[in-house]
Amino acid sequence: MFKAAIIGATGYTGQELMRILVRHPQVKITHLIARSEEHAPIHTLFPWIEKRLDVACTNILDEDEIAANCDIIFLALPHRVAMDYAPRFLSRNKRVIDLSADYRLKDVSEYQKWYGVDHKSQEFVKDSVYGLCELNRAQIAKADLLANPGCYPTGAILGCAPFLREKLVDPDIILDAKSGTSGAGKAPTVSMSFTEVNENFKAYKVCAHQHTPEILQGLRMVSDEPVSLTFVPHLLPLTRGILSTIYLQLKKNLSVFEAVDVCRKFYDQEPFIRIRPADTFPELKDVAYSNFCDIGVKVAGKRLVVITAIDNLVKGAAGQAVQNCNIMFGLPETDGLLP
Amino acid sequence: MFKAAIIGATGYTGQELMRILVRHPQVKITHLIARSEEHAPIHTLFPWIEKRLDVACTNILDEDEIAANCDIIFLALPHRVAMDYAPRFLSRNKRVIDLSADYRLKDVSEYQKWYGVDHKSQEFVKDSVYGLCELNRAQIAKADLLANPGCYPTGAILGCAPFLREKLVDPDIILDAKSGTSGAGKAPTVSMSFTEVNENFKAYKVCAHQHTPEILQGLRMVSDEPVSLTFVPHLLPLTRGILSTIYLQLKKNLSVFEAVDVCRKFYDQEPFIRIRPADTFPELKDVAYSNFCDIGVKVAGKRLVVITAIDNLVKGAAGQAVQNCNIMFGLPETDGLLP
Amino acid sequence: MFKAAIIGATGYTGQELMRILVRHPQVKITHLIARSEEHAPIHTLFPWIEKRLDVACTNILDEDEIAANCDIIFLALPHRVAMDYAPRFLSRNKRVIDLSADYRLKDVSEYQKWYGVDHKSQEFVKDSVYGLCELNRAQIAKADLLANPGCYPTGAILGCAPFLREKLVDPDIILDAKSGTSGAGKAPTVSMSFTEVNENFKAYKVCAHQHTPEILQGLRMVSDEPVSLTFVPHLLPLTRGILSTIYLQLKKNLSVFEAVDVCRKFYDQEPFIRIRPADTFPELKDVAYSNFCDIGVKVAGKRLVVITAIDNLVKGAAGQAVQNCNIMFGLPETDGLLP
Amino acid sequence: MFKAAIIGATGYTGQELMRILVRHPQVKITHLIARSEEHAPIHTLFPWIEKRLDVACTNILDEDEIAANCDIIFLALPHRVAMDYAPRFLSRNKRVIDLSADYRLKDVSEYQKWYGVDHKSQEFVKDSVYGLCELNRAQIAKADLLANPGCYPTGAILGCAPFLREKLVDPDIILDAKSGTSGAGKAPTVSMSFTEVNENFKAYKVCAHQHTPEILQGLRMVSDEPVSLTFVPHLLPLTRGILSTIYLQLKKNLSVFEAVDVCRKFYDQEPFIRIRPADTFPELKDVAYSNFCDIGVKVAGKRLVVITAIDNLVKGAAGQAVQNCNIMFGLPETDGLLP
Repeated sequence: MFKAAIIGATGYTGQELMRILVRHPQVKITHLIARSEEHAPIHTLFPWIEKRLDVACTNILDEDEIAANCDIIFLALPHRVAMDYAPRFLSRNKRVIDLSADYRLKDVSEYQKWYGVDHKSQEFVKDSVYGLCELNRAQIAKADLLANPGCYPTGAILGCAPFLREKLVDPDIILDAKSGTSGAGKAPTVSMSFTEVNENFKAYKVCAHQHTPEILQGLRMVSDEPVSLTFVPHLLPLTRGILSTIYLQLKKNLSVFEAVDVCRKFYDQEPFIRIRPADTFPELKDVAYSNFCDIGVKVAGKRLVVITAIDNLVKGAAGQAVQNCNIMFGLPETDGLLP
Repeated sequence: MFKAAIIGATGYTGQELMRILVRHPQVKITHLIARSEEHAPIHTLFPWIEKRLDVACTNILDEDEIAANCDIIFLALPHRVAMDYAPRFLSRNKRVIDLSADYRLKDVSEYQKWYGVDHKSQEFVKDSVYGLCELNRAQIAKADLLANPGCYPTGAILGCAPFLREKLVDPDIILDAKSGTSGAGKAPTVSMSFTEVNENFKAYKVCAHQHTPEILQGLRMVSDEPVSLTFVPHLLPLTRGILSTIYLQLKKNLSVFEAVDVCRKFYDQEPFIRIRPADTFPELKDVAYSNFCDIGVKVAGKRLVVITAIDNLVKGAAGQAVQNCNIMFGLPETDGLLP
Repeated sequence: MFKAAIIGATGYTGQELMRILVRHPQVKITHLIARSEEHAPIHTLFPWIEKRLDVACTNILDEDEIAANCDIIFLALPHRVAMDYAPRFLSRNKRVIDLSADYRLKDVSEYQKWYGVDHKSQEFVKDSVYGLCELNRAQIAKADLLANPGCYPTGAILGCAPFLREKLVDPDIILDAKSGTSGAGKAPTVSMSFTEVNENFKAYKVCAHQHTPEILQGLRMVSDEPVSLTFVPHLLPLTRGILSTIYLQLKKNLSVFEAVDVCRKFYDQEPFIRIRPADTFPELKDVAYSNFCDIGVKVAGKRLVVITAIDNLVKGAAGQAVQNCNIMFGLPETDGLLP
Repeated sequence: MFKAAIIGATGYTGQELMRILVRHPQVKITHLIARSEEHAPIHTLFPWIEKRLDVACTNILDEDEIAANCDIIFLALPHRVAMDYAPRFLSRNKRVIDLSADYRLKDVSEYQKWYGVDHKSQEFVKDSVYGLCELNRAQIAKADLLANPGCYPTGAILGCAPFLREKLVDPDIILDAKSGTSGAGKAPTVSMSFTEVNENFKAYKVCAHQHTPEILQGLRMVSDEPVSLTFVPHLLPLTRGILSTIYLQLKKNLSVFEAVDVCRKFYDQEPFIRIRPADTFPELKDVAYSNFCDIGVKVAGKRLVVITAIDNLVKGAAGQAVQNCNIMFGLPETDGLLP
């Protein structure tokens, strides 16, 4: 049994890690840390977990004790905060899975530009491994510092990858993505209050979302050509899920059946990718609470539309983190995640 | 044309006053005050009002100027804050409609107990008029300081009044009320965020809600006997509306048709009360965005169930405030509110 | 006072016509027809309208009586049904506003292809007037048969028109549109049930929606060049609104301020078009229950993103129908619709 | 490994049984039957289950084959239909778990009165076992025909039982219950469509819901005195969950701490009952997708308020069915349900 600590246990991704790991046959949560909470059984903070997990949550972080007793550290911290914590465990020879953006971008200047802060532990960026499981499995297995992908990048890159890799489309991508509210985290703001979000829908950070460079970096992993991206995120009045509608230009004619086959072959044997039959499309409800990424395609003349659906808290965060953890430990990749 | 100022224009009740008053044939908004905002056209804060209302909102409150130019002052301020402002206008001989709780309770000690603060302008409490239009119209017409009723009290008192007044029920009332989120105001909190409220439902402040003494005071207006109340409010995952399910014990047998008739007679000629036919019940969607209170009843043996529906922002706040304003000015009571 | 009949009063657009017209200073509803209902006061079917409108709804359609007593006939019927009714009134020299798709497409073969039925009254298609108010006002004033635009086409065409007319963009348009559920009408289906739609989001009729030829026809009104369109509609878990995110390719460099100015000039003096300042974008909540179309733009290199928001039941249906009615009768265009 | 058939696999309870059983360590789904579907892999009907369950769903019911190969038959059929199917398996010596209401009421005349049909297999009613696990475990273990409780009865009876059994309250109960939409099943109706339910809330079947006699029967299991009930169900705009607010009259004074203790003792060792600390109350989100029933209490004078929360599809249907299955087979009661 591997032992896990979650630093930042009380946010939405921290809670989601708990929801998944309590079912994991080989990983056991032993430490829960959250800055805002005194020492207390986790179920006093989250009634849903009573009779499922009996671990105390504390705001005292003892790195030595955790390093001595845990096999893996999950950082479920906000961007800009995680980079304060990762080095403390890496320096103690502990493997770290960071769910924040802090170690995803290889180009530190891009990080500093989009996140608006200096990067405080640049020495670890170079060896961090980008944990998009389906594209980077071999590197992930050896990772000490795993940079778990962002939610929008996961849905976008998984949808584009088969067609970019096969050079079937121009590398000029329009990404119209729609996210549920849990991706915005738990810090209260007027704009994320129920009364504002309910019965509303809007675009936000139009062509200006901080996931833009991460998506571009991911697309470059599968494309030889320079990639450009128009990314418009929207906020859905629902809790879980990201639906990405991706518009691509085909370099040559392709039938919808051929397009489906391109995806099927590319993701052959993948346990968490499901390709929809021609002319059917993924829906958020089919991936909610699961680690699946569902993909559907449509061809209209030279235009290819690819639609992907994920649960932003699972495949877009905690679920993919556990999938990465499984790969890092050589466990069956579906442990804790299927069925 | 009467001229109106709204102090606290940017909260939900302030916005709702604007939504209603822009349609009012006899009242014109001339001043908008909000603490948090620099001087700016109101539509730059609220895009929905562009091309409907062209007034600046400012954080500079000039009581002399407002008193000189306005006929009525709407205070759309939080509880505990309104009592700082009402005296400034009353002392300048201006009529004030206060949408907060500050002048509703005649027993100041009850106010201080439930709202947890000293009352700072007790001298105005005695002459304030409780603005439940259907029960207090004559007093309202003469009011200088109008205490506009709370949302839960409006739905509860209107449902109980016919049966208490006619001495048909025991004065021991169970009120199971369900409110939309807009009643909680705009200040951001984790518990009112979309991710927490969506797909959730809960009771809160069980037998401990601050509207309890106001409901009791209102029920006493229509009952000779001492009244007791069990009040359990709940939070609905929707924006507008309060449905109140009221459980009463009949003193004598009554058919459902007789019960309907009791309501019909009691509210005869009321423009904003609609009584549902026997065995049909009000729904929140039928009163949304309107000043109506819909009422339905059911008799089961000696138990009488009364169900009322209002829009908490309209009949439960801004709409009733405008109805009160109409009564105070001798205007048709439906001006700005119907059709 | 003009007198209006609504044929198909009990569907969502019929109800919305009632909601708007009860406030109209110059138009009075005198006849309500609905196939499914026996003769009954309308408020027995729709409790929300009690004390607002006192007209009976009946399933007996007497064209002579209606023609003799009404000035305008609103057809709020399903596609394929409206064409059975329009001729009965046109032949009696009555002006008709048809809210269905039946007379929108000038190319009858396109109609027959997309709607899957023969057109039964082709003789009226030629002279029908497409009622997109902002683009076709002069024709509308003279119309006998007004074909009220569809919801998706309204949002799409209003967003593209300034840039196509000024030849600033390539006529190859990507339209990623998201609609609330009321656009699907009232006929019950599993896929539109609450349990299926709630907490879900999906694309549907991808590149295959029947509004495609109407959008193309509308775009050709403002473009000299051949237009092509990729149209992906999505279903939002909310009741009212369509947000259209439109991706265009600029022919020459344009700043976002210039792009905003293009819109401002194009829609100068329009009472129901609001252009958002640079780098701010429309939201559905700001147009809900109103006849406004809000427009925002973003420039990113050679890509222009235009976002429009409408209430599909108002500007996308009943509101635009009333706006058209006002134009046809020479009334102030905002009557019944503002403030 | 026990083998299970689900008859009625495509409704909401059928789907929920699949969701739960795919995780069950000792029960394997081998047969899926649904009247409306041709033979097809279940994932072609429900994309969410692809890569989780690979069984065909068919509309051909071969009782002999199922009886020969299955250990347990789950009937996830509508009321009135299940009684056509249960006898076919009971007569073949197969154990049946019926999720409908058909075998719950011991008094067949009550069944016939509330469900409006003749009971077609009355001979099995007498020996059927009511499967409210916490109250009837010994009988359940021996059941051949298990009548799985209804959703409202489960929440209501579990909340009242401790206080009735201990004779602490009058047996005159007010049940104000609020349910999500999934309890209404999948058959499409206007009143359950998204556009009607969204942003709405209403009472329905006031003092007339068909679960009334089942609740009364269940309450009599734990009370020596005659019980009376006022039951008002309401429809919430959310998918999963029933919150029951129960109003009881105490026979003697009791502190809230004592009331909590009454519950704690009564449900000591129960894996799926969680008692909230004094003055805290259950919320639907904490039980969603789980088999828990959370209970909170409040004392106000002589009035006791008990609030229970369940997921209507899990503890109120499929989850309790699996819990019953575990008891019937002597398996750990939490198999497939926890963590």
